[in-house]
Amino acid sequence: MTSSVPDDLQARLDAVPAVDPVVVERARERSTAQAKPAGSLGRLEDLAARLAGMAGACPPPVPTTPGLVIAAGDHGVHATGVSPWPQAVTALMVANFCRGGAAANALAETVGARMTVLDVGVAEALPDEVVDHPRLVSRRVRAGTRDLSVGDALTPDEVFGALRAGVDVVDDLVRDGVDLLVLGDMGIANTTASAILVAACTKVPAGAATGRGTGIDDDLLARKVDVVATALRRVGGRGPLGLLAGVGGLEHAAMVGAIVAAAGHRVPVVLDGVVTDAAALVAVAWCPVVAGHLVAGHRSAEPGATVAMDHLGLEPVVDLDLRLGEGTGALLAVPIVTAAAAALDRMALLDDLLAG
Amino acid sequence: MTSSVPDDLQARLDAVPAVDPVVVERARERSTAQAKPAGSLGRLEDLAARLAGMAGACPPPVPTTPGLVIAAGDHGVHATGVSPWPQAVTALMVANFCRGGAAANALAETVGARMTVLDVGVAEALPDEVVDHPRLVSRRVRAGTRDLSVGDALTPDEVFGALRAGVDVVDDLVRDGVDLLVLGDMGIANTTASAILVAACTKVPAGAATGRGTGIDDDLLARKVDVVATALRRVGGRGPLGLLAGVGGLEHAAMVGAIVAAAGHRVPVVLDGVVTDAAALVAVAWCPVVAGHLVAGHRSAEPGATVAMDHLGLEPVVDLDLRLGEGTGALLAVPIVTAAAAALDRMALLDDLLAG
Repeated sequence: MTSSVPDDLQARLDAVPAVDPVVVERARERSTAQAKPAGSLGRLEDLAARLAGMAGACPPPVPTTPGLVIAAGDHGVHATGVSPWPQAVTALMVANFCRGGAAANALAETVGARMTVLDVGVAEALPDEVVDHPRLVSRRVRAGTRDLSVGDALTPDEVFGALRAGVDVVDDLVRDGVDLLVLGDMGIANTTASAILVAACTKVPAGAATGRGTGIDDDLLARKVDVVATALRRVGGRGPLGLLAGVGGLEHAAMVGAIVAAAGHRVPVVLDGVVTDAAALVAVAWCPVVAGHLVAGHRSAEPGATVAMDHLGLEPVVDLDLRLGEGTGALLAVPIVTAAAAALDRMALLDDLLAG
Repeated sequence: MTSSVPDDLQARLDAVPAVDPVVVERARERSTAQAKPAGSLGRLEDLAARLAGMAGACPPPVPTTPGLVIAAGDHGVHATGVSPWPQAVTALMVANFCRGGAAANALAETVGARMTVLDVGVAEALPDEVVDHPRLVSRRVRAGTRDLSVGDALTPDEVFGALRAGVDVVDDLVRDGVDLLVLGDMGIANTTASAILVAACTKVPAGAATGRGTGIDDDLLARKVDVVATALRRVGGRGPLGLLAGVGGLEHAAMVGAIVAAAGHRVPVVLDGVVTDAAALVAVAWCPVVAGHLVAGHRSAEPGATVAMDHLGLEPVVDLDLRLGEGTGALLAVPIVTAAAAALDRMALLDDLLAG
């Protein structure tokens, strides 16, 4: 599949800049010269240096307009009974995001992030009252994926369609001033697809990448691990786009497109839980320089998230045992990312302080 | 000394309400009924329940106006050489807070916290240009404490004066709408005094409570541990006010007053590093119900901070290896505390969601 990447998408891959190690070093020197004991801002200093490398500028711009994109889609593998929740919940939650009643709404408002809900593959119709909601972007490629336990979940063209939806949403947000991309997900059964993607990209066994998702019991977990292991045998050797077609959610593909587009705009990407992390692994497998533009927002309680973070070499900003998705953990990291950049930008230098 | 607590301060102790366990339980039930897998907001749910208990209301009010108080003072023990920094840095940093060039300024702006700098015991004169700065509250009880290595650092009246300064600052802030108190400190050599207070309140040995502060070497650390151990033998058996007089900084005493006053107003208190934590231990020893009103903002890299958190039964919100003071770690927790309250307040209930 990699030989047939359409030109428009290939151009987006080619546009992603590598982070600049010289600028990273300059940021470290600036931080050390500021009016505080050296290193006393701890991991904020590391984060600020990484942001400088992403921006190719020291100090890096201080984000002012974070944008949350919640990519929503359904999964045919739901038919195997891997989740106790009805598939209809995906559409209900998309409506809930529009109405403002979700955790992500409360947290996005707290940190000043605008929210976009991208329906790239929800199975059911949305309530009439929300179909024209300004927060909703309707780019439904199909009404949920095919069941990955019996064959490929998506065709190559469906993957490309979802990738383009993610690219387009980010292009629009960046045009509107968004300078920090926060990713979130919604999709019943999407931790099953995520576990397969994580295991395939990191080469860990199915059991190490599979967790309890929304909170399943031991029997259901055993069934889920079995589904993951079987699919992994089927698609494990494929490249990134082949994996997306084989087991991906449409929301995974959309997030891969969003990540590549944001990195191309030098807009840092804050990851949330195992679903966004799985997308990030695929994006990095497809376009390795993307890795330098990622921030691990939090450490999800889902084990595949930690496997992914370790593989990507990312240290989560926040660790509060969240396992909700929707971008909730990533949103909590937004003020900390902003604070890191603000400190590097605005603090006085020690020499100036001591000179009185 | 406890028999001679002035009536005005005793009244503030008596005014601190206990947290309400019934309201805490009601908050947990509300959280469980919200439109998400049970427990999936992790420690945000615990935090929200604690905030409900502090407020005596479910849902608790969502903080809108955080106020940072940086209590500043100098320490006579600086003469023993426990810090590589000149004492003049305290006054220079107070001026830096007024000019806006400190880490705390950048972070306070990021999280929308107003800053008040309380000079309760700085040794040197402040630059003329800042003495009338609106951010500065001048309540200097004396120009630094006496050297705790040779005798008591403060008289009882000096302790009362500093306690009252802290109470008054918080009363003024609350009158102006502050609904979340964030504590920070500035004072060269104040981690030495803090280590003694932590060790005395928690009964750990001097070495376990003493750290490298701004970043001292092994020789200086050994000297610092010796100073802490010697002072601990002198004052270890005293009650909270006796400890403050024996080894406290004026900023410790002011923060004790601020904590008691805030708890009395049902305004939650977010702690920063080992200096604010030492003050919290003294406040709780003096008035145990205060403990329920405290939030551990972050886990400072200073070992005494973790000793104090464990003793207070608090789990830090953020853990990013900060060791700067100024309230920087506590400020990073502010949006997370706010988010916890906002989620409990605003999320839809699961039954309503599933009803369509």
